[in-house]
Amino acid sequence: MNAVEDCVASESDSASERTSAPPPPVAGVVVKAREPEGRSVEGRLLSRLLAFLGDPPLEFVLWTGEAVRPAVAADPVASLHIADRAALFGLLADPQVRFGESYSDGRITVEGDLVGVLEAVYKSGANSKRRFSVLRRGVELMRRRRINTLPGSRDNIHHHYDIGNKFYSLWLGKTMAYTCAYYPTPEAALDEAQVAKMDHVCRKMRLRPGESVVEAGCGWGSLAIHMAQNYGVKVRAFNISHEQVAFARERAQREGLGSSVEFVEDDYRNIIGKYDAFVSVGMLEHVGVENYPGLGRVIQQCLGNVGRGLIHSIGRNRPAAMHPWIEKRIFPGAYPPSLSEMMQIFEPWNLSILDVENIRLHYARTLRHWLELYEGATERVAEMFDEKFVRMWRLYLAGSIAGFTTGTLQLFQVLFAPGVNNDVPWTRDYIYAR
Amino acid sequence: MNAVEDCVASESDSASERTSAPPPPVAGVVVKAREPEGRSVEGRLLSRLLAFLGDPPLEFVLWTGEAVRPAVAADPVASLHIADRAALFGLLADPQVRFGESYSDGRITVEGDLVGVLEAVYKSGANSKRRFSVLRRGVELMRRRRINTLPGSRDNIHHHYDIGNKFYSLWLGKTMAYTCAYYPTPEAALDEAQVAKMDHVCRKMRLRPGESVVEAGCGWGSLAIHMAQNYGVKVRAFNISHEQVAFARERAQREGLGSSVEFVEDDYRNIIGKYDAFVSVGMLEHVGVENYPGLGRVIQQCLGNVGRGLIHSIGRNRPAAMHPWIEKRIFPGAYPPSLSEMMQIFEPWNLSILDVENIRLHYARTLRHWLELYEGATERVAEMFDEKFVRMWRLYLAGSIAGFTTGTLQLFQVLFAPGVNNDVPWTRDYIYAR
Repeated sequence: MNAVEDCVASESDSASERTSAPPPPVAGVVVKAREPEGRSVEGRLLSRLLAFLGDPPLEFVLWTGEAVRPAVAADPVASLHIADRAALFGLLADPQVRFGESYSDGRITVEGDLVGVLEAVYKSGANSKRRFSVLRRGVELMRRRRINTLPGSRDNIHHHYDIGNKFYSLWLGKTMAYTCAYYPTPEAALDEAQVAKMDHVCRKMRLRPGESVVEAGCGWGSLAIHMAQNYGVKVRAFNISHEQVAFARERAQREGLGSSVEFVEDDYRNIIGKYDAFVSVGMLEHVGVENYPGLGRVIQQCLGNVGRGLIHSIGRNRPAAMHPWIEKRIFPGAYPPSLSEMMQIFEPWNLSILDVENIRLHYARTLRHWLELYEGATERVAEMFDEKFVRMWRLYLAGSIAGFTTGTLQLFQVLFAPGVNNDVPWTRDYIYAR
Repeated sequence: MNAVEDCVASESDSASERTSAPPPPVAGVVVKAREPEGRSVEGRLLSRLLAFLGDPPLEFVLWTGEAVRPAVAADPVASLHIADRAALFGLLADPQVRFGESYSDGRITVEGDLVGVLEAVYKSGANSKRRFSVLRRGVELMRRRRINTLPGSRDNIHHHYDIGNKFYSLWLGKTMAYTCAYYPTPEAALDEAQVAKMDHVCRKMRLRPGESVVEAGCGWGSLAIHMAQNYGVKVRAFNISHEQVAFARERAQREGLGSSVEFVEDDYRNIIGKYDAFVSVGMLEHVGVENYPGLGRVIQQCLGNVGRGLIHSIGRNRPAAMHPWIEKRIFPGAYPPSLSEMMQIFEPWNLSILDVENIRLHYARTLRHWLELYEGATERVAEMFDEKFVRMWRLYLAGSIAGFTTGTLQLFQVLFAPGVNNDVPWTRDYIYAR
């Protein structure tokens, strides 16, 4: 059942509950005639959509000028203008995907705060009593994620990370760290918080000079370079994004770290060798649950019976499918796991969890900072790509903020060690000692 | 296949690998004749048992005076004296259960460090290449745990916690806290570390004066009283151990806390009402995985969309059956979960994990302190019970130390909040700020 069917069905259900009169004609086709309340069929369908979404405080405005608000009165946080009938029916058929598509195409525009719109929808969704029909679950299952085989992962990663280093440099800040920052205080600046995140990770791992570290999924190399520069360790960093590796290598050369940081353009599954520490910040989202035991095997082989590791990843409070529009347009093959899913990395190999920290609100802050920088660079982005791309990425950043502020998304840092290793910190004081 | 069959089978396997001569006669009955190496059949079977256990550095001494050491030479940490043939064959048939039984009966005695013996066995077991046959798994499954229904839980808890408050007061220290302490430094004293644990838990939960706390499984009431006394909160504490509740009530009266702490002799499943915080220290081990979603429902109902909670529990790096002797003699119905299992409490109810800390080495230290006090009180214990009881509880305490030092057991503190609650700490600095 799609949203249209759901809306129509619940409309006729409630009508027949209210009265014994024959139910109103089912709106299988577009009907121009106004209903008794003076509302068009389109308007009534939108009312039903709002109810289906849990009545978020939003106003829809149709191309006719007709405005629709939730049944339960609440000041709307924004108005969503729907430009034509195709956008409306797309929204009714598949709200998650088609909102993204029509927003990107400019056929749905938002008057007001986009983040507020998405937060309102996520919050209402959490409270709505909507039925998850078998058919709906079927549709979700059929939206199969693109599988992360070795070549599949290359395609998926290329799609997102090889868009162009110049593009990312417009809004990621100086560090080019494309993962959740750690804000010592909520007022900290982006670059400061990114450096603090790297130090937080390094402190947790208790890196000591002369140790060796392997990094799985190293982005543009900021953490690898930071570890070598500030903790005196030797780093081998793996990444399958060609653009990122090229950038990272040049950066390490410029910093004179050619001998202590090695960037390898290869898949984490091909990591070999022994290391004192394993670290991965923001790669797990691209691994896929089916590959977690394999990732655990790689970690186990890297560490043996000693050392320790840290995985930093977006996660969930409970297993849930990736947002289908994000999966389709932004992050093919991506999946944020729940902690029980994440444990499939560790449990088969007797890796012992030492410490888990959830810093989801820091990701909302990080994304706010990125979105601010992005909004200041949209002209450049439009020149590099086009207006549709500008809107698409705005929606992705705004939606991610809403995901973290509403608790739909989490950010877990998981510190672990081989189960037989007793060289583990006595308390966590060492992380916080200044 | 039990250990005897395994030993015999692997003996004949390796014999037929070594030589094409006919395999030696299978020792289905006790044979006194010495083997060519001058070793008795009993001695050879013990050698096989050592190999099966992964060749721990232990010496077995038979009632005949014959000593058996592992094939791979290593200085034994202790000698295990086996008093008779029944104890030997019991050990071969079911080493885990029968070692405990024969040690308790005094038919196996340990010359040397008991904790060292158990650590050696646990360590070797982790490295041994022993095969887990389908039959062996079957036997493990057939050892069904005693189910934690409402009356079942009462029986199980009565078995352990109603032994007598006087008995526990001999070795738990002043706080009567019967859970892992938190040692600010490894040198801290037991009572100091128990108080530090209570403060660590309270700090993590950010208790504020005037708030209400519900405690599930409150032991002799030390945490409930500590929270009311030091954090100005109102506490309702649940426990199904009659002896413990009586003790806790008297204690609260004596401290003049009658109006701020209420002890309820009832099951956690019967908790009702709304609270600012939910806390449970050392109860989860008795809940049973099948009841985790139910426990989560209780938590969710207590907190609604606000507040936070903490569960402190023994755990595992990966799911594993409870040690069968401990389950049989000490803790019927108990089971320490892995983190993935523990997540069955939280994930169905969108409870968000904020912080997990593993302090397993603190439990080894706590148990060392308990064992020291216990050893100083064995005469009293023997008067209260008998010598067999003294040995049984010594083995349980020593085995638990070994479990935590070898990483067979973990101690997790899990801090959580309802998924929609954004009133969560910005960083964990507040726990460590002095």
